[in-house]
Amino acid sequence: MFAPEDCSADRFLDGRLTVLQPRAGYRAAMDPVLLAAACDARPGQAVLELGCGAGVASLCLGARVTGLRLSGLELQPEYADLARRNAAANGIALEVFEGDLAQMPGPLRGMSFDHVIANPPYFTPASGTAAADAGRERAQREATPLSDWVRAGFRRLSPGGWLTMIQNADRLAEALGALSTGGGSISVLPIAPRAGRAAGRIVVRARKGGKGRLQLLAPFILHAKAAHGGDAEDLTEAAQAILRNGEALPLAL
Amino acid sequence: MFAPEDCSADRFLDGRLTVLQPRAGYRAAMDPVLLAAACDARPGQAVLELGCGAGVASLCLGARVTGLRLSGLELQPEYADLARRNAAANGIALEVFEGDLAQMPGPLRGMSFDHVIANPPYFTPASGTAAADAGRERAQREATPLSDWVRAGFRRLSPGGWLTMIQNADRLAEALGALSTGGGSISVLPIAPRAGRAAGRIVVRARKGGKGRLQLLAPFILHAKAAHGGDAEDLTEAAQAILRNGEALPLAL
Repeated sequence: MFAPEDCSADRFLDGRLTVLQPRAGYRAAMDPVLLAAACDARPGQAVLELGCGAGVASLCLGARVTGLRLSGLELQPEYADLARRNAAANGIALEVFEGDLAQMPGPLRGMSFDHVIANPPYFTPASGTAAADAGRERAQREATPLSDWVRAGFRRLSPGGWLTMIQNADRLAEALGALSTGGGSISVLPIAPRAGRAAGRIVVRARKGGKGRLQLLAPFILHAKAAHGGDAEDLTEAAQAILRNGEALPLAL
Repeated sequence: MFAPEDCSADRFLDGRLTVLQPRAGYRAAMDPVLLAAACDARPGQAVLELGCGAGVASLCLGARVTGLRLSGLELQPEYADLARRNAAANGIALEVFEGDLAQMPGPLRGMSFDHVIANPPYFTPASGTAAADAGRERAQREATPLSDWVRAGFRRLSPGGWLTMIQNADRLAEALGALSTGGGSISVLPIAPRAGRAAGRIVVRARKGGKGRLQLLAPFILHAKAAHGGDAEDLTEAAQAILRNGEALPLAL
């Protein structure tokens, strides 16, 4: 388990959440906040996060929408433990299951959800160099193929439920291929660092059994100024609304 | 064959091209012009257009880049004939083959190309209502699956050659699935009617045997004003550069 001195207390949503994260391990930044904003769960609904890590996405969602039944599945025991502590410290009910999504833990197999959210690893086994920290490496580089994340997500959804993911933009083809098997009514939201630039991330959403047409939305732009100033002050108004004010990020037209 | 009185003479690229199109049949508008602009063929290279119709995309490309060897394949004899007449009338060399891309005509089987371009039908057999005109129906509704267009295109490309297509945005998943089989280094350019709106079309490009990462580019915006004025005057400067001045539309970062 992570000792307190090995963690930093990081503020999200303008300080509405304080989340312990391992100094040397995987540390969430904007992506789980965007993921949570893109999930339009309503009070009373059940939400499962696959690979919840320290819990940032689920806790952001719980901070925005009250009365959710939040569950998380995490492979690495020390991150699962941290997610439980973070949930308790922020007063948000989050049930964290420890296990592998490719071999879903028994209790979760009997459960179904209105929404599944996930921020799967961005790097494939072949790409890039390994992170020095084993936990971060595990969080960033997939051992389980992206298509298995999607399949596991759809299996846990009620009919008509929504699967929402954030991924690196260069994996758009894989993500859509996976989501098209078992899902439809797909929305793709490109997340671009600045106007006129290629997307760095994508938020993709599909409905279990959905029959609607795919929509490729206008990009969500993070930064306003031409050069990155190194602080949060150059966030666009739209990005501030999500990342600081904790507002929703609509994926519908 | 189409009689002259059944055709209208339509101007493209600010009048640099005049193209006969059947009044009642399939009539090209912006899409083949965008397709041609996105193909970065260089003088001396060989380009094949699958489903060339009356020849608008190939002729736009020939008008921008000199010294290309342009070939077109068209299923419908009366459109193939029109493409030949349009090429001659505009002084652009375009060899038009008549036949089905799923059963490539003999002469084309022996040829390979640096670029393949295509504007395949947007509608699937199940979608929408049929066009009253049989030729237009044939041009707009696919009889041959999109994946077969892509496969036929890759087969005709030299190693490292580029396949560029324009499609309806709602078929992004299918297009990327097809392009990922045999191709890589994919670029996706969303074409949006206005800033902040979902894409209506996509231009997608892949390299035969390419290993590069997919890039999801910033959208290309067609119209500038909030409401469509009904004439060309509200085109963005970028759209005017392509559609009126005949400039290139770069797909690289």
